[in-house]
Amino acid sequence: MSTDVIVLNGGSSSGKSGIVRCLQALLPQPWINLGVDDLIERLPPALLDSGSGITFGQGGDVVLGDEWRAIENAWTIGIAAMARAGARVIIDDNFLGGRASQERLRGHLDGLRVLWVGVHCSPEAAEAREFARGNRAPGMAAQQATKVHEGVVYDVEVDTTHAESLDCARIIARHVS
Amino acid sequence: MSTDVIVLNGGSSSGKSGIVRCLQALLPQPWINLGVDDLIERLPPALLDSGSGITFGQGGDVVLGDEWRAIENAWTIGIAAMARAGARVIIDDNFLGGRASQERLRGHLDGLRVLWVGVHCSPEAAEAREFARGNRAPGMAAQQATKVHEGVVYDVEVDTTHAESLDCARIIARHVS
Amino acid sequence: MSTDVIVLNGGSSSGKSGIVRCLQALLPQPWINLGVDDLIERLPPALLDSGSGITFGQGGDVVLGDEWRAIENAWTIGIAAMARAGARVIIDDNFLGGRASQERLRGHLDGLRVLWVGVHCSPEAAEAREFARGNRAPGMAAQQATKVHEGVVYDVEVDTTHAESLDCARIIARHVS
Amino acid sequence: MSTDVIVLNGGSSSGKSGIVRCLQALLPQPWINLGVDDLIERLPPALLDSGSGITFGQGGDVVLGDEWRAIENAWTIGIAAMARAGARVIIDDNFLGGRASQERLRGHLDGLRVLWVGVHCSPEAAEAREFARGNRAPGMAAQQATKVHEGVVYDVEVDTTHAESLDCARIIARHVS
Repeated sequence: MSTDVIVLNGGSSSGKSGIVRCLQALLPQPWINLGVDDLIERLPPALLDSGSGITFGQGGDVVLGDEWRAIENAWTIGIAAMARAGARVIIDDNFLGGRASQERLRGHLDGLRVLWVGVHCSPEAAEAREFARGNRAPGMAAQQATKVHEGVVYDVEVDTTHAESLDCARIIARHVS
Repeated sequence: MSTDVIVLNGGSSSGKSGIVRCLQALLPQPWINLGVDDLIERLPPALLDSGSGITFGQGGDVVLGDEWRAIENAWTIGIAAMARAGARVIIDDNFLGGRASQERLRGHLDGLRVLWVGVHCSPEAAEAREFARGNRAPGMAAQQATKVHEGVVYDVEVDTTHAESLDCARIIARHVS
Repeated sequence: MSTDVIVLNGGSSSGKSGIVRCLQALLPQPWINLGVDDLIERLPPALLDSGSGITFGQGGDVVLGDEWRAIENAWTIGIAAMARAGARVIIDDNFLGGRASQERLRGHLDGLRVLWVGVHCSPEAAEAREFARGNRAPGMAAQQATKVHEGVVYDVEVDTTHAESLDCARIIARHVS
Repeated sequence: MSTDVIVLNGGSSSGKSGIVRCLQALLPQPWINLGVDDLIERLPPALLDSGSGITFGQGGDVVLGDEWRAIENAWTIGIAAMARAGARVIIDDNFLGGRASQERLRGHLDGLRVLWVGVHCSPEAAEAREFARGNRAPGMAAQQATKVHEGVVYDVEVDTTHAESLDCARIIARHVS
């Protein structure tokens, strides 16, 4: 029974992208990567910083409007369909709603073999990395660091606070079948 | 009856990306954009320049292997599912197989209202733009300029040889319902 | 007597970057490129959108503060020194002050053989390209299109309104000795 | 007596760029950043992967040809001139020649107050980060990790193996006057 989907959940600046690139290089099968940031990049400008779309507030708040929710729902249905059609997909996400976000995604991925991965990072380290990136809304890292994991159930968990992305990816790869 | 999917077909360096950005800004509804280049970016490195994946040859040849075809098939199924779930999607593509590529995509988009758009550009202008971009495999633009349109049937056609992306987008937008 | 410096002056979205890439590929000698946009990218965040640094206003205004002027002055002195030390440099710039900007730059480049190139583009075409890029402050293209050329004296002039970057670069290349 | 130039020397993937962004945000005065990677980006394509320019070999070797050396020399003279004209400059570099590289740069920066900073990283961590970036010639990180520091004398040294860029930048900032 092989894994169909890998879901990486972690706060902003917790190191998900580096882990994804390592997983893509380490895993023997081809995995494509689609995450919430990809959807944001594909949005029309009118949905960015708009009440109906997605807004990045001053203190790191992320506010999601009705248009965003509708599009994100369709987007997720599409990714699940890709996986059902045979594409191996790594989804990287921030579960802003914690357990409720996981349950919603679990519903979309029904029937697929999913590896749920928690990507932890201390708020302090995530905040320092956010600062060093210089292109993220300040505050998101600290605010999301623990919140996105509330009530979420994982198959494997890694912590990037003191470990390299590559070492985290190696741990995850051992759970991919 | 509103349009569900806009398909832009044109050769490499024919100006599709500029038209997409203009359409996203012009159209009153939110449209997300997913194209073949997005899939290429999401691939693992092992599928790039690999016989089983996608290879960009010396003279601008693009060679597609079995793994590529399998993933592209699943990817397209997923995008169709997004559109059926209510996301408005602009697909930009190069129909390397001309009419056969269109028929394959038409099959995937069954039941959706699709606006088929041909994005033409003279081989000379496309080649000059490829040269000016400096980051594309030389030869693709000239090779694809007319080939991707062979036998393809469109609802609307634009030509970027002497027109700005914005003007082309305005013509297309009038056909979006 | 060989050319030491090529100065391309044109408004925002007039097509300077494409011409630069073509010139670098066409010219037999190695030319490095440094322009005002490179300086902006290297600035600390505190000087962006700051009264003392550089501000991109609502209607396309660019407001330059004292800190910006001091750094730009030092930057230009450095580029002139690179050229005097033997590096062939293509400078792309917007002469917001028209002739006065040219005279200031001419002073810095004293003793060097400079090819002054005007990159024209109709306000309408530049504005359409700015719109299609989607990542520029709207209004700059139209506002700068003719203003940056006021009173400026050129060795060669090109117009990108109806010509490809590559064709413009070929015209310029014939004047490089 | 205030610092004119900060030189960060460290191997590939040792974390210099993150430290630079933090320093630019932390330091009260405006500092611009110019490094060897900036020069590489500005080069014409003919000097990349060319015997006379700069070549990135299979195992992480970096081979420098005569044209490269001539341009880099002129580039460094220009940066020193910028600093003498009052721009505060952070130079990030890899001293492939160890002490000899430092002595050459010291010669160029004669008369300027320079803060020499060593950015250390264990070969293992640098290699893991190189792998996670996915866009660097494999092998450079491990090969340069200790080599670039051979015989080099520093005013301050940081180690990114177990510390965040921000913490390293804070240590460095205390030495900037």
